[in-house]
Amino acid sequence: MTGLPLRYSQAPVRLLALEDGALVARDDLLATEAPLDIRVTGGAGPIVTMRTPGHDLELALGLLHGEGVIRGRLEVLAIDHLPGPDDAVRVVLEPAARARAGLLKRSLLASSACGVCGKTRIDPPDSTDLPPLPAGPRVDMDTLLRLPAIQRNAQRLFRYTGGLHAAALFDTAGELLALREDVGRHNALDKLVGWALLRDLLPLHGHMVLLSGRASYELVQKCVQAAVPIVCAVSAPSSLAVELARRFHITLVGFLRDERFNLYSAPERIRGLSGSDVPSAFAR
Amino acid sequence: MTGLPLRYSQAPVRLLALEDGALVARDDLLATEAPLDIRVTGGAGPIVTMRTPGHDLELALGLLHGEGVIRGRLEVLAIDHLPGPDDAVRVVLEPAARARAGLLKRSLLASSACGVCGKTRIDPPDSTDLPPLPAGPRVDMDTLLRLPAIQRNAQRLFRYTGGLHAAALFDTAGELLALREDVGRHNALDKLVGWALLRDLLPLHGHMVLLSGRASYELVQKCVQAAVPIVCAVSAPSSLAVELARRFHITLVGFLRDERFNLYSAPERIRGLSGSDVPSAFAR
Repeated sequence: MTGLPLRYSQAPVRLLALEDGALVARDDLLATEAPLDIRVTGGAGPIVTMRTPGHDLELALGLLHGEGVIRGRLEVLAIDHLPGPDDAVRVVLEPAARARAGLLKRSLLASSACGVCGKTRIDPPDSTDLPPLPAGPRVDMDTLLRLPAIQRNAQRLFRYTGGLHAAALFDTAGELLALREDVGRHNALDKLVGWALLRDLLPLHGHMVLLSGRASYELVQKCVQAAVPIVCAVSAPSSLAVELARRFHITLVGFLRDERFNLYSAPERIRGLSGSDVPSAFAR
Repeated sequence: MTGLPLRYSQAPVRLLALEDGALVARDDLLATEAPLDIRVTGGAGPIVTMRTPGHDLELALGLLHGEGVIRGRLEVLAIDHLPGPDDAVRVVLEPAARARAGLLKRSLLASSACGVCGKTRIDPPDSTDLPPLPAGPRVDMDTLLRLPAIQRNAQRLFRYTGGLHAAALFDTAGELLALREDVGRHNALDKLVGWALLRDLLPLHGHMVLLSGRASYELVQKCVQAAVPIVCAVSAPSSLAVELARRFHITLVGFLRDERFNLYSAPERIRGLSGSDVPSAFAR
């Protein structure tokens, strides 16, 4: 359910901490950041992402799903860790997906904080062949307000290192289904989508995602690919994130914390809203 | 000195805010996120980065410096905005730098949160041809403790949008020389280095950088390229960031806030440290 295997995802560090004006040596834990090679057999060159080790297979699958390479679990013929000193994952895809992987115009190295790396061009959102999300599901406003506390409790790794992003998947009753953590927020979301893909839960129509930080373009783009209807972030969205959410009819919730939130799109998925501004707020 | 031109870097948004149990329509500002094309004449394909508009020329130069393409201002023959609907910058380099640009194994799209995108491989830190930083300068501990408040005051854009990273350059007396903001933390640092490059301040031996968030691999790597001897972050470093700082003899300060900090490497650059652990803390 929660977090990462602590053994891989944290690295011990010796540091000097300032306390009462003097420095004291302490042993602490850092979030591990290390490269992962993702090798699609018959695809383009290896995709390298800087990530926190753990859930690497999910990460590989989620990343490939976010890129539109994989559309379902049955397209994945095999996935495993490669032996050797480097962290590497090998993915064998069925022919149609392999062909899409070959079209990826990337020789990609994604950093720990990046989700759209290596492409020669950004596809404008309206050039994708994805339709806007259908209506529904509906979720109670009170359920939304409870999500951050649930996520925080589950985020055990953050308590140790103070340096990890999280992405959590909930059903519309507010039940936590999975939580993934990483130094890169796009990796945390990729791991979550990979988790769902392995369980045949995609598309995620009946679900919500909560992001521990900001909502940027690449994160909402991944939610479009996974058909997540309700995307919540603890912090601010960017302009392009809001644009994308509105175009694809995603309910985008920002600043979800301390019993409040801002709503940027598709308010009709949230039950229990009152206020005369609601019906007309986002009218074109 | 401070921030971004507000006109470009913020986008108005209509939202619904939850207040006292009811939703109220509000007009707010978001941090703008939009692609920038960087085209090096005679180089590889365009580099595309998701960034907050403003200081685009500095961003282009800083990014190219971080990649080792540009080593000084004199290598830049011309730089300007290209006319047209897309945000694009054209850079003309002298032949040696142009040749290095051609070697960049990227067809690169960097997201708003990424600094090492598009490479086919990560160069391990020890494979670079850069030497460790020389000894010095020294800075008072009290000066360090004052930096976060100075940066916060200068970060006017964040007050409006709540969604921007910042990177600030200080001299060793704690004087703020420049501050740059962006939805992507690597962009904020690139803009800062670009600012310094245009003023012939590189290498930044006599300076300090303060990062508003975490210190990850790619940020410390950019500081290695710019020879910043003291790198401070308001939040946690990653394991690889500490490794890199120690290898290149950078003083890495984390969790610099609320009158305290953690020190991960090279403590001898900080004056006024007391504590019997200091001399031996990082002994090999």
